[in-house]
Amino acid sequence: MARRTGRRPGNQDTRESILDAARRTFAEKGYDGASIRLIATAAGVDPALIHHYFGTKEKLFLAAMESPMDPVDVIDAAAEGDPAEIGIRFVRVFLSIWDGPGGTAGVALLRSVVGTEWTTRLFREFILTQVLRRAVPRLGLDEAEGPLRVSLAASQMVGLALARYVIKVEPLASAPAETLVAAVGPNVQRYLTGAL
Amino acid sequence: MARRTGRRPGNQDTRESILDAARRTFAEKGYDGASIRLIATAAGVDPALIHHYFGTKEKLFLAAMESPMDPVDVIDAAAEGDPAEIGIRFVRVFLSIWDGPGGTAGVALLRSVVGTEWTTRLFREFILTQVLRRAVPRLGLDEAEGPLRVSLAASQMVGLALARYVIKVEPLASAPAETLVAAVGPNVQRYLTGAL
Repeated sequence: MARRTGRRPGNQDTRESILDAARRTFAEKGYDGASIRLIATAAGVDPALIHHYFGTKEKLFLAAMESPMDPVDVIDAAAEGDPAEIGIRFVRVFLSIWDGPGGTAGVALLRSVVGTEWTTRLFREFILTQVLRRAVPRLGLDEAEGPLRVSLAASQMVGLALARYVIKVEPLASAPAETLVAAVGPNVQRYLTGAL
Repeated sequence: MARRTGRRPGNQDTRESILDAARRTFAEKGYDGASIRLIATAAGVDPALIHHYFGTKEKLFLAAMESPMDPVDVIDAAAEGDPAEIGIRFVRVFLSIWDGPGGTAGVALLRSVVGTEWTTRLFREFILTQVLRRAVPRLGLDEAEGPLRVSLAASQMVGLALARYVIKVEPLASAPAETLVAAVGPNVQRYLTGAL
């Protein structure tokens, strides 16, 4: 097991073994089926320790998958302010994370989500239960049409990440973030609040 | 080597060995570096036979990658008719291919493009030289801003394919094609001809 920092070796080992146990348990049971209790048993630790290190199951999942971001945090950041500019803010926050040090982890994550059937299935479940369902009320969307709106916006964001950071299609890959915010933001906004 | 049909076993074997040689040569030399002549040598056949079976190098590449579609054909189909509805037509043709029998091959292709570094690199080169550059004049776009417009549209299309067919995010995955044509078409149109 590679140790990333020299600090707190004991804690770091515990943390890593929880993450390993989480990956195995999520792979085996799916997102809903993998309880903190099951993960704790697999890691040989007390469930309280998992809560102490990671907080919620959602946060543990994102840490285990080495996600550079919590999509719900991005949604919350975008939701604050003028509702007519949610799309603009969403794209801006999203790009700031991917253009930053988290981008490399993002590429690895995206490769992993797409690469194998079990990671795809696991993320499908996570996106549905943890991201889309929570995004609809947070963005103040109608319950009936909100899910389609949010999944359309997600299709644009995942495509943008794939084209810019994984496939690196030029000139998209080198375009300044604000060029893309201005180009993509209004399209995301239309998905969320426009006439479809 | 699995034989797909019982017809013309000799030709089928030749075809398959050309495709195998093409895959190896593209992987080794990249899209530009892999000439028909090199592929013919690797397959132990005459270059004329490759042209006979596959036509151009572009078509050979798409066959070797088991692509369900030639993106340039989709662009050409979308380009014909009212320029204000290119986006609508593009999404409609694109979905009709992915919703049809080619969809399974499309999913495999997308997994493969994203899955490994060499396929990503190969497709990056192919998309740049064969798709984006040819799309700009075919869609009647300005030479300077056309490439960004086309790559933005591509980001939406690849994201749509990923969300609908690979990750299968609901309700996007089960939405009727025409619902998505109406939702996504205008966004693609804006990328191509709108104010960015």
